[in-house]
Amino acid sequence: MQEKGLLIVLSGPSGVGKGTVRKEIFSQPDTSFEYSVSATTRKPREGEVDGVDYFFKTREAFEEMIENDQLLEYAEFVGNYYGTPVDYVRKTLDEGKDVFLEIEVQGAGQVRKKFPEGLFIFLAPPSLSELENRITIRGTETAELIQCRMKAARDELEMMELYDYVVENDQVELACERVKSIVVAEHCRRERVQYRYKKMLEVD
Amino acid sequence: MQEKGLLIVLSGPSGVGKGTVRKEIFSQPDTSFEYSVSATTRKPREGEVDGVDYFFKTREAFEEMIENDQLLEYAEFVGNYYGTPVDYVRKTLDEGKDVFLEIEVQGAGQVRKKFPEGLFIFLAPPSLSELENRITIRGTETAELIQCRMKAARDELEMMELYDYVVENDQVELACERVKSIVVAEHCRRERVQYRYKKMLEVD
Repeated sequence: MQEKGLLIVLSGPSGVGKGTVRKEIFSQPDTSFEYSVSATTRKPREGEVDGVDYFFKTREAFEEMIENDQLLEYAEFVGNYYGTPVDYVRKTLDEGKDVFLEIEVQGAGQVRKKFPEGLFIFLAPPSLSELENRITIRGTETAELIQCRMKAARDELEMMELYDYVVENDQVELACERVKSIVVAEHCRRERVQYRYKKMLEVD
Repeated sequence: MQEKGLLIVLSGPSGVGKGTVRKEIFSQPDTSFEYSVSATTRKPREGEVDGVDYFFKTREAFEEMIENDQLLEYAEFVGNYYGTPVDYVRKTLDEGKDVFLEIEVQGAGQVRKKFPEGLFIFLAPPSLSELENRITIRGTETAELIQCRMKAARDELEMMELYDYVVENDQVELACERVKSIVVAEHCRRERVQYRYKKMLEVD
């Protein structure tokens, strides 16, 4: 029996550097997971290949996918749809390969509902580590600015709730290493490994 | 406030290569955790330093440690006691450093009771991955031998129950990398990280 792959979801506040971390991860030759190709209604740019860069769809085809629940998550930006086709994800997981999604926090919420067993990684802004200093240096900031920062920090904290892991994006290389370590560790979890042995021994 | 370190417990069936993996881990310059020095009643060998190789104790002093519950775990081999002083472990964890223990499965059970929050890693023999083949190649083995192997596999499986992670020792370098990845991942767990932020925001 083929063991299923892991669904890895990297998300976090906008501007945190998700795309940069994803590109760095996939530029490394030892990365063994598959990047999930998105579907879009945007026109292909020169050199873009259907099924590699995106699955290019008409608006009608995309809306049909929405209606038929064929998207793990989707959103509309500047008049174009972007989404994650569930078929590709399921097929790749069934082949025993780990699938990597890099999506917005709204999308991550949608994915969690359909794949509660996914591995949800919150990419945290590097500034969070400096938050304590920034907040507690009193007298140098107006009370209003401190309040504003506290509110932003609390909002980010609430977004974290949904996630299994928090990776600080202090340095892109370090953030990548952490993401890859998390995937290695998850593959070693006893529940995951033991199930395989148990099944094997039951069969015999 | 200093965040506490992780207690990392590497154990597994005897002969699996725990010592080899531990030595490899501590030979790597980027290893950031502390090796827990054992106490023993064995006489120091030439070159061995008290507090570095072992804490050398008299039999009376060791038995007093047992009575005073000052050992995380202990056992007697060939007329000498060996054990893990709890003071060193607590002190090092309190300093925010990760502590690494390499111990026998019996000792791991004792540690789990005192440190349920520890990170328990089961080092599995490389043969486990070949088990399926070995068991299912029929006709080439006596029924008795197959039964014997099934029993051994089931016993190992039961020993795994106590652990959070299972690391296969197929290659020492790979096993080390997995152990270190598990520690990196555990430091990124949301419960661990979020607590820190929450505490920080409450204080202010």
